[in-house]
Amino acid sequence: MVQFISVSDISRIIAEVGIDDVLRQLAEHLEEDFRRWPEFDCAPRLANHSPKGVIELMPTSDADHYAFKYVNGHPYNKTQGLQTVVALGLLADVATGYPLLLSEMTILTAMRTAAMSAVAARALARPDSRTMAIIGLGAQSEFQATAFRAILGIENLQVYDIDPAATTKFMANMEGRGFHITVAEDAASAVMGVDIITTVTADKAHATILSDNMVGSGIHLNAVGGDCPGKTELQREILNRSTVFVELPEQTRIEGEIQQMPADFPVIELWRVLAGDLPGRTHRDEITLFDSVGVAIEDFSALRLMRKLSIQTGHHQSLDLIAEPEGDSRNLFGVLDTPRTTLEKVAA
Amino acid sequence: MVQFISVSDISRIIAEVGIDDVLRQLAEHLEEDFRRWPEFDCAPRLANHSPKGVIELMPTSDADHYAFKYVNGHPYNKTQGLQTVVALGLLADVATGYPLLLSEMTILTAMRTAAMSAVAARALARPDSRTMAIIGLGAQSEFQATAFRAILGIENLQVYDIDPAATTKFMANMEGRGFHITVAEDAASAVMGVDIITTVTADKAHATILSDNMVGSGIHLNAVGGDCPGKTELQREILNRSTVFVELPEQTRIEGEIQQMPADFPVIELWRVLAGDLPGRTHRDEITLFDSVGVAIEDFSALRLMRKLSIQTGHHQSLDLIAEPEGDSRNLFGVLDTPRTTLEKVAA
Repeated sequence: MVQFISVSDISRIIAEVGIDDVLRQLAEHLEEDFRRWPEFDCAPRLANHSPKGVIELMPTSDADHYAFKYVNGHPYNKTQGLQTVVALGLLADVATGYPLLLSEMTILTAMRTAAMSAVAARALARPDSRTMAIIGLGAQSEFQATAFRAILGIENLQVYDIDPAATTKFMANMEGRGFHITVAEDAASAVMGVDIITTVTADKAHATILSDNMVGSGIHLNAVGGDCPGKTELQREILNRSTVFVELPEQTRIEGEIQQMPADFPVIELWRVLAGDLPGRTHRDEITLFDSVGVAIEDFSALRLMRKLSIQTGHHQSLDLIAEPEGDSRNLFGVLDTPRTTLEKVAA
Repeated sequence: MVQFISVSDISRIIAEVGIDDVLRQLAEHLEEDFRRWPEFDCAPRLANHSPKGVIELMPTSDADHYAFKYVNGHPYNKTQGLQTVVALGLLADVATGYPLLLSEMTILTAMRTAAMSAVAARALARPDSRTMAIIGLGAQSEFQATAFRAILGIENLQVYDIDPAATTKFMANMEGRGFHITVAEDAASAVMGVDIITTVTADKAHATILSDNMVGSGIHLNAVGGDCPGKTELQREILNRSTVFVELPEQTRIEGEIQQMPADFPVIELWRVLAGDLPGRTHRDEITLFDSVGVAIEDFSALRLMRKLSIQTGHHQSLDLIAEPEGDSRNLFGVLDTPRTTLEKVAA
């Protein structure tokens, strides 16, 4: 039997453990796995492009576990009331190849993306950061806000979205959670006086969500929305002024903000900072930029945590997904309730 | 909700429709999809090798559907009573990226491999073929026998396995199914006088299951067991005397019997024969060889059929695998039963 975490299960797990605590544990798991980065076999994503979107398989493994995520990206889905991105994930045992866990990953991807942003910010933002701007109030925005409070203690938000309906949704979801939120009239007002800027807009285009004059010294930029070829949010002058931290350079150069820059544009691998090999921020006035695109190791960390929490809380099911011959493992045919057996049963 | 076919569901579907009829419908679906081969986007498999085995993702798609299979190969699993190969598969909608169907594929892979062998034999063996040898009576053997009877009408079998326990298992499973089966004392006796030879042994080694002098003119060879690097069953002299038909040449040159041959060894793509572009067998004395390794398109065909049969028979379940925000598709956070909501519910 394969352990299964449904959408209801993950909602119950998060409700029972508490979303702040799940995000904090997720941050710990992400840091642990990033510190041992060279232990992972990180295959490239396998992408299948079609006119309306992309479907990707993202696998990775260490010596003990193998994980992959199925994830799509269909920007026009929202016109039909469907989500742009849905995902599911599998964790398996490397020694036997048997699947251990199947999980919903639409919510889990949102959780791990937000926790990863907060992990990067904890290492890179000024330690006295108190205020964050969020530009783009789509599906990821509440998760970012919640993760930054749970992991960095950020309670003051200045937010902006071009679509008032997105702002209304964000404010309704954040109500009563103890944030101090200012809704700004435009992106420029939203970033005024903040310590951290999170950009997480959804348009599949080279957009200029932030222009150079909006970014003051000492800021940490958490650039989440520029995450696939053809989709960026920052003016390239900002990148030239920033120290840029990335997950997997070869992937970020294709998918991240730095797709705008030459192939030798200098970047620092975030895992080396988390492992203590390289410094993060070196002075108060430095602009640090986490160019987030999301890598398979983050899904691995998330599945590893959810396996633990689902067992701990009992919120999971069992799936009859793997045929198990009785006695002789080669007797796969015997698993079938084939006509002859059925006839015998009817006759008996 | 994602449609789910469990091991019990597939057993019930096969029992209700009848295994012969499922195999015949599978053969039709395979032929249909092979005839339109150029319509498929066939990415290479993504393999993750570890000391004990391999885990692979096999994706493919046409304009409407995307499918992938998760499958392992762990030869030492049987020493622990586990299966060497287990698999699961997913079918998704290319237009939205949403998963449609999740299915067990351990049994389904055995079914599609056998149906594919029979499809190839129907195109390549002499039309008056009546007798088949099966060398290797492991997990795939009963499926091969059943498919060849359902699709080609072959009822006379001459069988051999080095392990008497495998023979006992095979004979018990085949009893009462209307076959005429002779158990041979060795591989050479098993192939004596037959029209078709199926080799389907399991050892991960360059073995010589068939040597050149055992293969007479006019034979069709169905070489199923040589299916990964380092694993072959036929002496290379046999390959030199045969016309070799393959699924995907670049994959078969790495995984199939022809891994023993130079890179320019001539092969014929089976889909071109099924599409009517190229002849199959050209004369009675020709030795035809189907060097089967299994490709993603076959899993696609199998998932397509099972989706239809599971709806037709009602044997499937619904999985709560995709988070669906109500109203605004961007309101993913609202799906969560988060602490605030829980507290309000308790208070209400």
